[in-house]
Amino acid sequence: MQQSLHSPKSQSSSASVSDSAAQLSSLQQTYTVIPRVRPHTPLLDAINTPSDMNTLSTTQLITLADELRLFLLYSAGQSGGHFGANLGVIELTIVLHYLLDAPQDQIVWDVGHQAYAHKALTGRREQLATIRSKDGLTAFPERAESIYDTFGVGHSSTSISAGLGMSLALRYQGYAQTVACIIGDGAMTGGMAFEAMNDAVQQDADLLVILNDNDMSISCSIGGFSRHLAMLWESGYQVDISESGEPVLCQRPDMQAFDRRKRHKEMRDVPQLEDNLFKAIGFTYFGPFDGHNIPELLRVLSIAKQVKGPVLVHIYTTKGKGFAPAELDPVGYHAISKLPAEIHNESQSKSAEALKQNTKPALKYSQVFGNFLCDKAAEDDKLLAITPAMEEGSGMIDFARHFPTRFFDVAIAEQHAVTLAAGMATQGVKPIVAIYSTFLQRGYDQLIHDVALQNLDVMFAIDRAGLVGEDGATHAGVFDFSFLRCIPNIVIAAPKDENECYHLLNTCYEHQGCTAVRYPRGTGTGAVIEQPAQTYKIGEAVIESVLGSNDAPYKLALLAFGTMVATAQQAAESLTGDDTALECQVHVVNMRWVKPLDTAMLESLLAQGVTHIATIEEHMIMGGAGSAVNEYLLNESAAFKRQRPAVSNIGIPDRFIAHGSQAEQWADCGLDVAGVIKQLKQLLS
Amino acid sequence: MQQSLHSPKSQSSSASVSDSAAQLSSLQQTYTVIPRVRPHTPLLDAINTPSDMNTLSTTQLITLADELRLFLLYSAGQSGGHFGANLGVIELTIVLHYLLDAPQDQIVWDVGHQAYAHKALTGRREQLATIRSKDGLTAFPERAESIYDTFGVGHSSTSISAGLGMSLALRYQGYAQTVACIIGDGAMTGGMAFEAMNDAVQQDADLLVILNDNDMSISCSIGGFSRHLAMLWESGYQVDISESGEPVLCQRPDMQAFDRRKRHKEMRDVPQLEDNLFKAIGFTYFGPFDGHNIPELLRVLSIAKQVKGPVLVHIYTTKGKGFAPAELDPVGYHAISKLPAEIHNESQSKSAEALKQNTKPALKYSQVFGNFLCDKAAEDDKLLAITPAMEEGSGMIDFARHFPTRFFDVAIAEQHAVTLAAGMATQGVKPIVAIYSTFLQRGYDQLIHDVALQNLDVMFAIDRAGLVGEDGATHAGVFDFSFLRCIPNIVIAAPKDENECYHLLNTCYEHQGCTAVRYPRGTGTGAVIEQPAQTYKIGEAVIESVLGSNDAPYKLALLAFGTMVATAQQAAESLTGDDTALECQVHVVNMRWVKPLDTAMLESLLAQGVTHIATIEEHMIMGGAGSAVNEYLLNESAAFKRQRPAVSNIGIPDRFIAHGSQAEQWADCGLDVAGVIKQLKQLLS
Repeated sequence: MQQSLHSPKSQSSSASVSDSAAQLSSLQQTYTVIPRVRPHTPLLDAINTPSDMNTLSTTQLITLADELRLFLLYSAGQSGGHFGANLGVIELTIVLHYLLDAPQDQIVWDVGHQAYAHKALTGRREQLATIRSKDGLTAFPERAESIYDTFGVGHSSTSISAGLGMSLALRYQGYAQTVACIIGDGAMTGGMAFEAMNDAVQQDADLLVILNDNDMSISCSIGGFSRHLAMLWESGYQVDISESGEPVLCQRPDMQAFDRRKRHKEMRDVPQLEDNLFKAIGFTYFGPFDGHNIPELLRVLSIAKQVKGPVLVHIYTTKGKGFAPAELDPVGYHAISKLPAEIHNESQSKSAEALKQNTKPALKYSQVFGNFLCDKAAEDDKLLAITPAMEEGSGMIDFARHFPTRFFDVAIAEQHAVTLAAGMATQGVKPIVAIYSTFLQRGYDQLIHDVALQNLDVMFAIDRAGLVGEDGATHAGVFDFSFLRCIPNIVIAAPKDENECYHLLNTCYEHQGCTAVRYPRGTGTGAVIEQPAQTYKIGEAVIESVLGSNDAPYKLALLAFGTMVATAQQAAESLTGDDTALECQVHVVNMRWVKPLDTAMLESLLAQGVTHIATIEEHMIMGGAGSAVNEYLLNESAAFKRQRPAVSNIGIPDRFIAHGSQAEQWADCGLDVAGVIKQLKQLLS
Repeated sequence: MQQSLHSPKSQSSSASVSDSAAQLSSLQQTYTVIPRVRPHTPLLDAINTPSDMNTLSTTQLITLADELRLFLLYSAGQSGGHFGANLGVIELTIVLHYLLDAPQDQIVWDVGHQAYAHKALTGRREQLATIRSKDGLTAFPERAESIYDTFGVGHSSTSISAGLGMSLALRYQGYAQTVACIIGDGAMTGGMAFEAMNDAVQQDADLLVILNDNDMSISCSIGGFSRHLAMLWESGYQVDISESGEPVLCQRPDMQAFDRRKRHKEMRDVPQLEDNLFKAIGFTYFGPFDGHNIPELLRVLSIAKQVKGPVLVHIYTTKGKGFAPAELDPVGYHAISKLPAEIHNESQSKSAEALKQNTKPALKYSQVFGNFLCDKAAEDDKLLAITPAMEEGSGMIDFARHFPTRFFDVAIAEQHAVTLAAGMATQGVKPIVAIYSTFLQRGYDQLIHDVALQNLDVMFAIDRAGLVGEDGATHAGVFDFSFLRCIPNIVIAAPKDENECYHLLNTCYEHQGCTAVRYPRGTGTGAVIEQPAQTYKIGEAVIESVLGSNDAPYKLALLAFGTMVATAQQAAESLTGDDTALECQVHVVNMRWVKPLDTAMLESLLAQGVTHIATIEEHMIMGGAGSAVNEYLLNESAAFKRQRPAVSNIGIPDRFIAHGSQAEQWADCGLDVAGVIKQLKQLLS
């Protein structure tokens, strides 16, 4: 193997060309404990911009990788957050920033779970422990945060499109900067990555795509594409890069074992050269290479970045690399929580176990859904369930284990997930698409055309609706009422708590047609789920409580949707409950259904002489559930025209809500109890 | 080449196994004139369900293809509609219905432009001339129309997902029907087709995908995928199918010339075996085969349908096959208009010319956009324009010719188109995404995340907004206000006529940030475009007219958006203009902006004492522009609270609107002048 190193960025680079790659590679450390004390990282501490790396030798770059890994372990223990993917791209990040001249050269990360090392090397090292907290660093690259963050990414599969746009705009203007996109094998299954590759070839764009193949998205990557990557590995061949940038077919050199590829059952025993998807589509392909071998990455990428046209460099990395517990359990260590204060240097395995997310005992909404799925599947063999790569997040682990023939993980492929369900529904089964609200935005057209327009019997279990906390604006599910409500044939439910969620899931499942149950991230009020499953009347709201005196001069109808029922109840209790309370009677209504709306309930409240109406929802005000109430009152209700109660729509104002805890986000929007009380007082004044 | 024919559906099939494929193939006719008189089609007339074909010999199937082609020519002359794609799949349709046992076996068409032959063979022959007209057949497969229409399709790239859903649901229930998906090479560039292939391999589903490769979507197919198909052709190899269903690599036999493949500049001179994308992803691949050769199709598909796992059969067809003018000009003959009554047996070339669409002299909105694009590009070299495979439809032919380096046709790839624009915008240029409203539904998430959230400087030129006539509900652009309005940072404009469209395009182009100009299909009022381009004040509405006496007891504010301004004006004139007129004064307001809304205008109208307010838009009422007016009035306006004018939101009711002419659709919704007058009278009464 060639050992020559290229460092075109800096002629004065001192990266040694004489070191043996194998020997250098062995310098890399594996850690077993997350440090609680800021580690000693002298090389890292000297890097405040990527150009500070210019003078480092290859040996020093390897040491830097060790320091950065230890620092990220420490930092993640302080802040929590995404973990495994970041450990996997430390070497790649160092090499990219060493070889490229950011921010002139454009480094485009996909998904962004993997940008912590990038943040640490671009002037944000000491802020890294603030990641995901209010006013702290964002969890993903964000243009507003740094000139080195070329493109904001929360959802996956966008990097090739964005990078291609940059490359074409630069070429059009006569510039020759390098654009490098780093995309994981999981993100590659999203169809838009394929759309972008198709176009990059059409445009013959200079674009360096680095396929970071760790055989994982959040869970194991699946599908024909993943199998293809496995076969490229198992073929035993490697397309190496010559010094002049030409592909050179050779036997793949020994690398660290990536033996989980064996799980692909179609894998053949006899190595052979496989058809190459990237070459087929028209990319120049190099790979596979060891993505943790810094000298090898320096050699390959320094040449590849100068090859004309669209180039894909395929590297293998290990998610959680360099932290032994995460290498063993990459799914569990996709993200971690903060290091708990009470744990002090216990045995590594125990403390590591405690660091994993999802250890909270209270039932999350995703678990409520998972329980419903298992319960219902046991009694109805027509139930099938689909997830676009969110088996864990959507609470489907148990279902997948108990009903493997009825569980369909389609990889990161939201468009396909929705139409797949529609196709299934034509054959007399009942598919459920479990999807986060924010990701449903990717299957919107398919929901309209393939499900609602054909009135097919598909249920959507929409998780992570409303504000989601630390993941910030990219993961907020705050548009779904608006984009769903306008679609004919759809039924939309919003449960007030875990118990109602269970029964609304059941109700919508029993309904023939397109339904959506929309529930939030995390835990709710802690309501215990009552058995057996009930079937509610669709479109029927319920009075949650009536507070205050019937003689009060003001009568307020507080029409609450979903998560805001509990908040509304608390606000109403405060408004009516103490000595300083306003003289008003409050009907707190759990609206339960966004579509169809319970207009009989509205008429009943009007008939009781309500003087004020407030709608409240964890959703944009514009076009949301409150807007549906407005439409009915203004257009349809004779009583409203006569009585003219004052109306207020309480919800999320017309701006993107930055990351922070959910509680901080609610307060930011006026959707905490205090904020709601304040807005109700304004309405009543 | 093997000549044996398989007809597993019917043991009694009389399809001859002794005919020479080459000889039989030559029976096919090419026509040059569209018949005005119902042609003599005795074989076709005897087929009322696909099973009526069971007893036909191969020779008769070929004759049936000729008859069907002639009949489709006649029928298209009567009804207008999609043309070229239908002529291209006549042989394939016959063979599929001969070999498969529909409706038990599932035939899933992609896009559906190509389903006319399918409709003719499945009991709808004599209704075919009603296609696209009100109460007539739909332009696409539609489940409600026929048990043979397995899946409704208006947008592209859905067939593999839908077919996979069917296959998995059938397998789960223990059924073994064949599922065959027919997808064009153009539709294959849509990312969800790739998502579906990835998943089909993961599921190891029995799925027969037939890639109908005519090197065209509506225009020429482009990109790495198209190039790949061309190279598979030019390699000179063919993966034939053995009698036992195994792939057999051989030299490709002579076929009719498909020489437009040469336009791919990367094509190599020396044939060689290329990497195969379908094999790479894990499909069993057979092809390429001649898609007009009935004996060959019978041989190949009869075996392929029995091969286990996901199979792709790659066939070549010619768009417009068998009608000489369309073979020469497949883009012009993608769809045709009805045969004009006044043309009688003129020279074929002249009448054929007259049949093409887009010959109407009045300026369409798409042409207004095209003119703007050329004008603005000439003065601002930062302007770049992107289309997802709609160069003609979006009026970009001239722009593409004059500014080839600034024109980007990304193929059918809406997700990519939006993020590509976002990437471009990061590099100091100004991209415009030209997209139909209905297709923007496919780039929704990207618009939120990659453009609006990052506040990038991208303009969307949204064509075909509102009701679109003959293409029906699948192509209606009636959700965009709802799904866009809730997004922060966006500016949304709706021009009242062609002239205003031009200036709003200019205004939004000049604005820094995410903007959308939303205009309808076809022509408008015929307004002449005034030069130079103006820059309107964003968020400023204009009084279109004030009609009726200031002393009238009723004062109506008619708040009209976009296309409905002219309708509102006519309705207002009728309400106030004659002796039987209502005693009211009407302010007709061209609202012009959906976001930001001109709330100062609303206050001004309230200050003038309006007693009634009507909003009117060519969009769903739910969450639309009227909903924005409601939100302001109820939440923000003190004057509204005092004065309490009655409010009505006029728009499209909560149902999908079936195909027909645009005028018929407007009448159906109450959005024609008479319907609006009726609703206004209800409001005023």
